[in-house]
Amino acid sequence: MDKNHEMWSNIGMDVDKHDMLCEVLPGAFGDVFLSQENRPERMDYFNMVVGDIHGIRPAELIEEQKKGRKVVGTFCIHVPDEVPIAANAIVTGLCSGSQFWVPGGEKVLPTATCPLIKASLGARFDKTCPFFRIADMFVGETTCDGKKKAWEILGEDAPMYIMDIPQLKTEDDFLKWEKEIKKYIAKLEEMTGNKITEESLHNAIKIVNNKRKALQRLNNFRKLDKVPISGKDVLLITQIAFFDDPERLATMVNKLCDELDERVKNGVSVYKEGAKRILLTGTPLSIPNWKIHHIIESMGAAIVGEEMCTGLRYCEHLVDETPGTIDEQVKHLAKRYLGSINCACFTPNDDRIDDIIRLAKEYKADGVIDLNLKFCTLYDLEGRKVERALKEAGIPVMGIETDYTDEDAEQLKTRIGAFIEMLG
Amino acid sequence: MDKNHEMWSNIGMDVDKHDMLCEVLPGAFGDVFLSQENRPERMDYFNMVVGDIHGIRPAELIEEQKKGRKVVGTFCIHVPDEVPIAANAIVTGLCSGSQFWVPGGEKVLPTATCPLIKASLGARFDKTCPFFRIADMFVGETTCDGKKKAWEILGEDAPMYIMDIPQLKTEDDFLKWEKEIKKYIAKLEEMTGNKITEESLHNAIKIVNNKRKALQRLNNFRKLDKVPISGKDVLLITQIAFFDDPERLATMVNKLCDELDERVKNGVSVYKEGAKRILLTGTPLSIPNWKIHHIIESMGAAIVGEEMCTGLRYCEHLVDETPGTIDEQVKHLAKRYLGSINCACFTPNDDRIDDIIRLAKEYKADGVIDLNLKFCTLYDLEGRKVERALKEAGIPVMGIETDYTDEDAEQLKTRIGAFIEMLG
Repeated sequence: MDKNHEMWSNIGMDVDKHDMLCEVLPGAFGDVFLSQENRPERMDYFNMVVGDIHGIRPAELIEEQKKGRKVVGTFCIHVPDEVPIAANAIVTGLCSGSQFWVPGGEKVLPTATCPLIKASLGARFDKTCPFFRIADMFVGETTCDGKKKAWEILGEDAPMYIMDIPQLKTEDDFLKWEKEIKKYIAKLEEMTGNKITEESLHNAIKIVNNKRKALQRLNNFRKLDKVPISGKDVLLITQIAFFDDPERLATMVNKLCDELDERVKNGVSVYKEGAKRILLTGTPLSIPNWKIHHIIESMGAAIVGEEMCTGLRYCEHLVDETPGTIDEQVKHLAKRYLGSINCACFTPNDDRIDDIIRLAKEYKADGVIDLNLKFCTLYDLEGRKVERALKEAGIPVMGIETDYTDEDAEQLKTRIGAFIEMLG
Repeated sequence: MDKNHEMWSNIGMDVDKHDMLCEVLPGAFGDVFLSQENRPERMDYFNMVVGDIHGIRPAELIEEQKKGRKVVGTFCIHVPDEVPIAANAIVTGLCSGSQFWVPGGEKVLPTATCPLIKASLGARFDKTCPFFRIADMFVGETTCDGKKKAWEILGEDAPMYIMDIPQLKTEDDFLKWEKEIKKYIAKLEEMTGNKITEESLHNAIKIVNNKRKALQRLNNFRKLDKVPISGKDVLLITQIAFFDDPERLATMVNKLCDELDERVKNGVSVYKEGAKRILLTGTPLSIPNWKIHHIIESMGAAIVGEEMCTGLRYCEHLVDETPGTIDEQVKHLAKRYLGSINCACFTPNDDRIDDIIRLAKEYKADGVIDLNLKFCTLYDLEGRKVERALKEAGIPVMGIETDYTDEDAEQLKTRIGAFIEMLG
């Protein structure tokens, strides 16, 4: 038995079933990523991470657990990473981006549930995701009906902690969210035995901000006329950012950006001149969901940005780093984690529309694709407003709905192809 | 032009389109209700109301508006009727229970939205519901993703006011709900120009409680071995209760109950001896959604209760009538309107499971049917827990999912028939 299999077995995974995933992922990764021409060399780090995503990082987490550190699994960018980090715990993303996990989720959830949620529960119940085995606690939130109720089911099998996200953004809602963050602090202190201090919280804010700054730097290259890195690669890095150590991730992203600076100096673009520029908006794309990026970029178009949780929404806004009391710093966290994230779970959510139009301009998008994961009620309903506002702003837009299967790939190619051609 | 058509035209309805509904409703009502044997005579009032449901009551509302009173349309039993009543306004239900309105809703909403929401928006946008034309304000709430976002769309065409319902039931959530009720009071005062006083609020609480008591009295007959009124008729009365003047409704229900008292004395049952007793649970059944009741009772089984918003949840718990300050009375309202309604929108919501098991026992149900309207994520997801708990309690249970069409009627008859037979 190799090291990975030994580890997977030790953490109670269904190794045989998981092997089925291991058999297909490298091929998929090769087809989607390694086939790209003129990739930056420093994508090597990210290739390596994703090439052994269920091996290297899980092994590190287990090592840290042996030293007494706790691991917290999270599902949503509203949940502040700074809190576990300040308690010397580790935050990790969880498996949710592949059809492989969906049938397991459908055993406990209605079919008419979004694939992200079904995959999450399937990955846990089927024991085919190391992160779902390793984490000491899972932090759910009440962002949508599907997740809110799915956490109850997950809670039958896994230690859950729920953060109750407001549905509006009034002054009271900010106070409520501050209270929720304080409860989360107390929970982490209790769980880890480590007191969160003004200093440790301030330090954690800086760590996460530095990761954000690196990702911002990376995304800024996509505003250029000659884009030195593909949308696929940026998506991959963003997806990995949910799992990797935040300081190392920032370092590796900055190193890559140094290479991209060189490319800019040399006028290098990964796209052919005149490639149509697309901004994506909509539901999150978690690893290894590369479907739409692959379809779009294989047609020669450039994805220049994602107004998504797995995109600019994850890194665009920093937390105020002014040192202060815990209360003051919590206020900064609440401001960023409630105020700056315009998820469709809020009502009204017109700021998201402003974001999309602003980003379409900043990234010089020729068109916007509004991407919805099937049965995501919130984004589906909000899509109408988004598409209308874009049309009114004179920005071409197309809405597509899809899931994790490949059944609609040909149909999507036809529709997306026609859209890109129309951008003309 | 007859009086009704003149009124409908005056309030801006699409009279031609609405006539299509008028053509089919009486036949449907006749088939479902008038065909029943041995109905209580005092159902006459309710037959009359429903027979001209878009005529009589709308005309009354318009008369009251002429006198300066305001009409408030509501969608959800979490929204306290007592507040508008205390401000001398009138509360009315809205159209949402027929497939007739669904296609209009699908013009502005995704198909994968529950029929209740689609019908509501269709009834407004198609101008085929007098209540949706008459109301001066509509009160939405954030109970589910579909409604939360649908109100944004409805708000483009209609004056909306949103109450933000908590998603949990902690102490803070009760305080939050009290605050929401106070804001609603301020809104109604502003809208009507009438100050809500300790006395007017106390009086409103008594009015609504009296309606609840009448409906409780009515439902209590369903606990008897010989049930003197059909489930269909009780459903109809509950549906009408959302529209009718609350004091008149209470009076008419109590008069009917007097007749039912006589029936009990005489040992009258509307069901054959040994009829299987069914408790329904799940999503609301708004007028004229009689589909499942008709299927079940046409098979000779008895629906003895609805653990639903259009059922016992609407009337089971009273508001504390102790007179007091506005603050104290708001506390009583919050306790009842948040604490006593176990909607699937809450997490966790185990009290609902306790309710279902308790009601199954109180109403001596032989089995429970868990009824879900298609694309209602919350009840769909909670259904798994409900059905498991009932099985564990030794109560036979069947889950069914349906919509407003008749396409699945034959299939439902087969499945429900087999379930009833199994109860055996």
